[in-house]
Amino acid sequence: MYSKKEALEYHLGGKIHTIASKPMDTNYELSLAYSPGVAEPCLEIAKDKELAYVYTSKANLVAIVSDGSAVLGLGNIGAQASKPVMEGKACLFKKFANVDAYDIEIDVHSVEEIVAFCKALAPTVGGINLEDIAAPKCFEIEAALQDLGIPVMHDDQHGTAIISTAGLMNAMEISGKKFKDIKVVVNGAGAAGIASAKMYRNLGVEHIILVDSKGVVSKDRNDLTPQKLEFAIDSKEKTLKEALKGADVFLGLSAPKILDDEMVLSMAKDPVIFALANPIPEVMPEDVVRLRKDAIIGTGRSDYPNQINNVLGFPFIFRGALDVRATKITENMKVAAARALADLAKLPVSDAVKKAYEINSLEFGREYVIPKPFDERVKAVVSTAVAAAAVKDGVSLIKEFDERAYFESLK
Amino acid sequence: MYSKKEALEYHLGGKIHTIASKPMDTNYELSLAYSPGVAEPCLEIAKDKELAYVYTSKANLVAIVSDGSAVLGLGNIGAQASKPVMEGKACLFKKFANVDAYDIEIDVHSVEEIVAFCKALAPTVGGINLEDIAAPKCFEIEAALQDLGIPVMHDDQHGTAIISTAGLMNAMEISGKKFKDIKVVVNGAGAAGIASAKMYRNLGVEHIILVDSKGVVSKDRNDLTPQKLEFAIDSKEKTLKEALKGADVFLGLSAPKILDDEMVLSMAKDPVIFALANPIPEVMPEDVVRLRKDAIIGTGRSDYPNQINNVLGFPFIFRGALDVRATKITENMKVAAARALADLAKLPVSDAVKKAYEINSLEFGREYVIPKPFDERVKAVVSTAVAAAAVKDGVSLIKEFDERAYFESLK
Repeated sequence: MYSKKEALEYHLGGKIHTIASKPMDTNYELSLAYSPGVAEPCLEIAKDKELAYVYTSKANLVAIVSDGSAVLGLGNIGAQASKPVMEGKACLFKKFANVDAYDIEIDVHSVEEIVAFCKALAPTVGGINLEDIAAPKCFEIEAALQDLGIPVMHDDQHGTAIISTAGLMNAMEISGKKFKDIKVVVNGAGAAGIASAKMYRNLGVEHIILVDSKGVVSKDRNDLTPQKLEFAIDSKEKTLKEALKGADVFLGLSAPKILDDEMVLSMAKDPVIFALANPIPEVMPEDVVRLRKDAIIGTGRSDYPNQINNVLGFPFIFRGALDVRATKITENMKVAAARALADLAKLPVSDAVKKAYEINSLEFGREYVIPKPFDERVKAVVSTAVAAAAVKDGVSLIKEFDERAYFESLK
Repeated sequence: MYSKKEALEYHLGGKIHTIASKPMDTNYELSLAYSPGVAEPCLEIAKDKELAYVYTSKANLVAIVSDGSAVLGLGNIGAQASKPVMEGKACLFKKFANVDAYDIEIDVHSVEEIVAFCKALAPTVGGINLEDIAAPKCFEIEAALQDLGIPVMHDDQHGTAIISTAGLMNAMEISGKKFKDIKVVVNGAGAAGIASAKMYRNLGVEHIILVDSKGVVSKDRNDLTPQKLEFAIDSKEKTLKEALKGADVFLGLSAPKILDDEMVLSMAKDPVIFALANPIPEVMPEDVVRLRKDAIIGTGRSDYPNQINNVLGFPFIFRGALDVRATKITENMKVAAARALADLAKLPVSDAVKKAYEINSLEFGREYVIPKPFDERVKAVVSTAVAAAAVKDGVSLIKEFDERAYFESLK
């Protein structure tokens, strides 16, 4: 781990910078890059807007837009204070998938204003990654931007959904269970909880219990948002503790150390415990292992097995979407990303990955159901799956797509 | 010159990219750059917003915002088609002054919407360069953003004003004329024309005739915007031709080859002719030289003497403003930039500059009243002048400013 001092020193001067990617050292080059030569691409794009994908950086550029209303576990700290997170995300886009990204922190906070801002911004970029925007407004904002003609995704929702789904797919394979038979408890009904529940349901999970700070999201409650209402059930179980009895899966997006021994022991055989509260999970993995050996445990941390880290998703989802000029990110594209990650975890890793993760098991099994962030194969595998799904769904504007050639180009 | 093909090929894939400026190759570095380490700078900034200037890229980052309503000489080509210009400008910021810049093309076009967009965007950046926004809305937009707490400047207005003022200062010195005595004709009453006229007036020019497409801007007209009205005069002269008789200065921001021989000959002794229509000026320099030897001629072109190029201004105005954490760009800061450029033209240039501009004279005189864009001294000289003026005007938020040390640090 790091000290506060180290973290602050690392951030001095910020983390993201721009570079001019073309030579600009002579009068001739200056006359190409700016007036008068720049008029030529302008005129071409004025005739056909799609040519912005050819003559500008748009084709490889994503905006990371946040109003700072739900930042990490810090809450509503505002746009200015959210900037280090968005810069960090911009760095991850570049580092992991070579996607250029502008961090955009905005000091407007209503659904209407954020939607208007993103619509205005659309010509600038090839895609928009909404980030750290509070629920429930995040749902409405994302929905309102789906016809913008560029992919728009709120990563807090779908990142966790996709990566946890990948882990869940493999956990089910290991335990021999089927989605339609399992009982899933999602604790935390914010952006990530709702989106994860939706993805699990779409994949066939029938028994989902959503739990928020007031307890089980049940039909007899009258304080539910439309998104929660969609998952409200008739239920005798009113508390997390009651809900967990016999549960096959716990997805925690809530608070540190809220699972006690009794709760862990009350879960079904071969339980999946994804305890994603950061940095202290809902239950420490060692405390689960002490109680039972059949659990498959994941956290948000890099120092434990099965790190459920969004960085396995968003860089490659946008990489694939941008590369086939997808107009949106469909459910199939997200599921394809999850499937690709799940499959990759079954293949042996390289020596470089082994070296980066010495403390963890990297053999497919209970301690390794999800690939590691620094696994260099993730980029090609996930991006290709996403791109192929976009083409299959008919949301891609490119005319021809050679999946094999694309995959090879990313390796 | 270049061919259309060369200009388009140069632009393939765009001109601006992002880079992660901190190491991010290990789990440890990842935990600093993103969750959970990134929480530390977030919390610091949440307590004191000014710390965004320490722990993020904000202190060195400018947004170049355009709605594409008045792009180069191309007119209202829209946000998407303006992107190559804004990317080019972002490259010049980086190349000439090491200022990071995000090009932001926005698909909203009213004063209210553009102002609202920029206000929302403010936490992201340390300054906003408004660009290629049509007159007269550009005036109102810029004015509405002056209390945002970060410098906001519409470069189409002030860039030309500042650089032409620098040239004018030296031209007056060469011809022995004084600002208060000269007659100035500004042809073109858009953003650049109005701003130039204002700056000349602030410097003591009393006799300014503004001319637009309908002729001299005179009090008897009833079609004038508030900005034009400010320069409306009682005038017998109704046309450009009439206005030019006996004029000491012509500033052309209008159309190719509109000055005929008679007009050129009708001007006063030692006339200044800044013919800035691009790429074909209001009169070709060789045609002026054929008619009279006493003229001081400037154009927007690099292949003639005295290039009036905005790149001599905006990168360094923002460099200086950012470095002293100026909350706005004052008139004194702009005049300081002009004065610094004028003074620099009197000093001998380096061999590198001589080599880059073999065809031009670089001895202070009629053919060299303004420094060259590739003169490596411009950065330190202009940025320091701007920073010092900000401090003097009390718009700087830094506590101590050592002008000499700052100048040396930029060299």
